[in-house]
Amino acid sequence: MDAANKGFGIFPVGYVRSPLKERTGAPRQGWEGAPAAVLEIDPEFFDCLDGIEAGQDIWILTWLHEARRSVLKVYPRGRRRNILTGVFATRSPDRPNPIGLHRTKVLSVSADGRVQVQSLEAIDGTPIVDIKPVLGSQEPVKLS
Amino acid sequence: MDAANKGFGIFPVGYVRSPLKERTGAPRQGWEGAPAAVLEIDPEFFDCLDGIEAGQDIWILTWLHEARRSVLKVYPRGRRRNILTGVFATRSPDRPNPIGLHRTKVLSVSADGRVQVQSLEAIDGTPIVDIKPVLGSQEPVKLS
Repeated sequence: MDAANKGFGIFPVGYVRSPLKERTGAPRQGWEGAPAAVLEIDPEFFDCLDGIEAGQDIWILTWLHEARRSVLKVYPRGRRRNILTGVFATRSPDRPNPIGLHRTKVLSVSADGRVQVQSLEAIDGTPIVDIKPVLGSQEPVKLS
Repeated sequence: MDAANKGFGIFPVGYVRSPLKERTGAPRQGWEGAPAAVLEIDPEFFDCLDGIEAGQDIWILTWLHEARRSVLKVYPRGRRRNILTGVFATRSPDRPNPIGLHRTKVLSVSADGRVQVQSLEAIDGTPIVDIKPVLGSQEPVKLS
């Protein structure tokens, strides 16, 4: 792999503040009992938030900084009774580019770039790399 | 911005092959008339595909390589009559970390790492950085 020569640089636009402090024990998905959290956006990106409002559903893209990037297959949800599966067919944080995709709802947005969200399974200190609006009546909060 | 010191490296795991050759004229979303496309996954990541099957709904994360990363606000959909809006409240490709999020359906997966998908608005040559399964009965194909 020659990632250095053909790669791209991404950087945090802010960080997750959450009562979840460790990956062990964190819920796998936001609807599995994840707590409310705050997105602390860096001042240079405050303008990017203009238009984000309370009640809106958003995608948060994070950098899963504790992930193992050399992992190509996993036992889904860490259960050995599951079939060993390619990471692209799972939501495992361990994957070549460990970008987390989280859906949640905005509770409030403050002028100092703090976005409170309803539930988030990312741990405290997780770098945020992007926020996008959910389009239409998209992902359910509960697993069907 | 001190991105070089605090950034992360991501790299392509494959590339989009599509009849869409230019950003100008490409649909904004997959359900807006985007053509079928092929995800050409690099051989070193074939194992990551194990478990991806025809009929499955997936998220494709791409690197929007023609995006302008210094853009913080846009007129949504490029229309000046829209209100100038922070990029986090839009799906604009121009944003600090231009990661594209596309939902589509798998039509076929071949042993040589070619994943045919139903519709994709990304242009030919777009780097793919991740693939994830859609969980539950998630995003609609059509805008509600």
